[in-house]
Amino acid sequence: MTSEPKTFRVGLLGHGTVGSAFAELLPARADRIAAITGMRPELTGILTTSRGSFEEVIEDADLVVEVMGGLEPARDYVLRAMRAGKHVVTANKQLLSHHGEELWAAARENGVQLRFEAAVAGVVPVIRVLQETLAGAHVERVTGIVNGTTNFILTQMAQNGSTYAEALAEAQELGYAETDPTDDVTGRDAAAKMAILARLAFDTPVHIDQVSYEGIQHITPEDLQYAHDLGLGLKLIGTAERVGEGIAVHVHPAFLYHGHPLASVSGPFNAVTIESADITEITLSGPGAGGAQTASAVLGDLVSAMIPPASTPETSATLEVVADVESSFYLHLEVADRPGVLAQVAQLLGLQGASVRSVVQKGLGDNARLVMVVHPLLESRFYAAVELIAGLDFVRSKPRAIRVVEEEYT
Amino acid sequence: MTSEPKTFRVGLLGHGTVGSAFAELLPARADRIAAITGMRPELTGILTTSRGSFEEVIEDADLVVEVMGGLEPARDYVLRAMRAGKHVVTANKQLLSHHGEELWAAARENGVQLRFEAAVAGVVPVIRVLQETLAGAHVERVTGIVNGTTNFILTQMAQNGSTYAEALAEAQELGYAETDPTDDVTGRDAAAKMAILARLAFDTPVHIDQVSYEGIQHITPEDLQYAHDLGLGLKLIGTAERVGEGIAVHVHPAFLYHGHPLASVSGPFNAVTIESADITEITLSGPGAGGAQTASAVLGDLVSAMIPPASTPETSATLEVVADVESSFYLHLEVADRPGVLAQVAQLLGLQGASVRSVVQKGLGDNARLVMVVHPLLESRFYAAVELIAGLDFVRSKPRAIRVVEEEYT
Repeated sequence: MTSEPKTFRVGLLGHGTVGSAFAELLPARADRIAAITGMRPELTGILTTSRGSFEEVIEDADLVVEVMGGLEPARDYVLRAMRAGKHVVTANKQLLSHHGEELWAAARENGVQLRFEAAVAGVVPVIRVLQETLAGAHVERVTGIVNGTTNFILTQMAQNGSTYAEALAEAQELGYAETDPTDDVTGRDAAAKMAILARLAFDTPVHIDQVSYEGIQHITPEDLQYAHDLGLGLKLIGTAERVGEGIAVHVHPAFLYHGHPLASVSGPFNAVTIESADITEITLSGPGAGGAQTASAVLGDLVSAMIPPASTPETSATLEVVADVESSFYLHLEVADRPGVLAQVAQLLGLQGASVRSVVQKGLGDNARLVMVVHPLLESRFYAAVELIAGLDFVRSKPRAIRVVEEEYT
Repeated sequence: MTSEPKTFRVGLLGHGTVGSAFAELLPARADRIAAITGMRPELTGILTTSRGSFEEVIEDADLVVEVMGGLEPARDYVLRAMRAGKHVVTANKQLLSHHGEELWAAARENGVQLRFEAAVAGVVPVIRVLQETLAGAHVERVTGIVNGTTNFILTQMAQNGSTYAEALAEAQELGYAETDPTDDVTGRDAAAKMAILARLAFDTPVHIDQVSYEGIQHITPEDLQYAHDLGLGLKLIGTAERVGEGIAVHVHPAFLYHGHPLASVSGPFNAVTIESADITEITLSGPGAGGAQTASAVLGDLVSAMIPPASTPETSATLEVVADVESSFYLHLEVADRPGVLAQVAQLLGLQGASVRSVVQKGLGDNARLVMVVHPLLESRFYAAVELIAGLDFVRSKPRAIRVVEEEYT
């Protein structure tokens, strides 16, 4: 940096879960964004239900973040902000699924950006991928798990045999469902998101009222048991697809065969699969909601709005590239089949700080094998142990080691 | 369109698998791109190993697509194109993992875009997501299956018990591996891609020579059998992660526990998981290679370079939104336990064109259940059959129907 970066002024409309997470995240990332864009974003005004004036917030802003939700006054505010020449980033799926065409037209007329990654599937970058990566592609179908609340409930029902009511109560307790869960469990929230995805995928106007939807309230533990018997998983699936010369957009509970890319998406996660002859298919998955994650999606849009011509910035750091790192390992030994073998191997591992996580012994006599997985340790220490193990008289060939990725994901 | 769109001139360097697929795709998508960008892309020059002059190709171009591969003359050509004020889209991972800093600096100095989505994981949009969606995020770790050849070989070994040599031969036969597979099977190809991902994730220079890598040539069917016994899957995994104040970048065969988002990626697919406290994790997956898919990634970059300020274009079509679509269904009936029940149900389904894919019968007497999955048919016809079935005297409660997503993915 040769001089102080210019300030990029951000106005915030709404200060609920996402708004307050964004207000925290922005200053924490301002230096990094200044390095990328040459401008330092700063929160210059906040409108809450009880404080602030809309007029003052937009007057002081280069870009407005709308995370109030609802149709009005959000629609009015977003339109007025764009007419005043401000870029807008919104997380409001209801607004876009009702008034998208009006708002996108206003953005084009006023030469400003209207970005909305956070409106669908949280930080999963499906909007950007449809609008940019696949801008030139002929999309055939978009299939998604776009509501984390219902996916959490169905996952609980499948894994624990809970009833719908029990799983809903648990979702509410953990903050994955609202006190009034109607929009989520009836499929209406997913329908709004599918309307937006269909609009982008097929380049045709789609209003939420054109999306048929069905919820999960009627799903029973027995359905999930039968699904299991039939080799299927049950998800709330949104589909937008070409049908003849038209399109169909719908949200329904649906069974998926195990090979389906959405079949393994569990808990509050979201995922979207986009199919096109050009690309076969792409699947994107990640957390579908949560204040911090949604705020992060809003921040990505903010950065994009700040740097229209994308570029790879100069590196801002010169980090050391480390060679010796911790890993869990699989160790495969061909051994003579005699007492004390495991104990001696375990002792040599232990001297280097390696502890055994699981062991399989197989075969007899000349074909005996000792296979184990050890907990993470520095690879230099693991290989030091392996070198000593290779020298033991009962080890009959070169030990074989392969890394194991330890992290458990949910 | 009120007037003929302006031409956007594209020069193509290289006419192998990707180059020729791109040369075919571009005219097929030119109308759509003209609708989005207001400019019609047109191939104005091609340089092959035997035809064309580099000077003429760049002179006639607004943007140059480099899909020749290799370090020289690709590096020289890309630099000269940017110095002449041309945007560049490249699929060349070797080039970027060796000379990335020099090339990105040249792009910044000359005010042109250098885009390279196709260089890593084909059409899987990991470059765009790291550079744009996550531009402001603090990334902790990037983990990827970024080589389709080795993932195909390991999948074959796991599924069929093939040896490495047998699986490699099959990959070569199917076009998933080159005649000389050295770069793929030694992990060097994956190392180049991980160098690029690490550069973007951590904003620090990373050269391919700083990436340690190990291939899959020494993996045996027995390893995969033990992996199975231990509840693990075996993949060639690239990892770029923060370690203390530095970073570590490496490529190794590694076992994954089943819950890992990369564990279910099979065949020639690629996938990348990005972890950050801001976002938890995002996983992106899709075909890692293939001429058409890579050409599609190049096309996405081309469109982005043509429209620096992203916007949602006017809709170009008004497609009918169809309500009645085909689906496979699960049908759950509570029935009296007597002979002929299944036959009557199947007959009513058959009259509407519904054929039964699988059936489960459970329970006796008052608790008898008939659960089936039917092959796809129009939902109006399915529900017409269900209404008739509901009227049968042995059906003891309202039939329950849930959609089944039929497609089998590989």
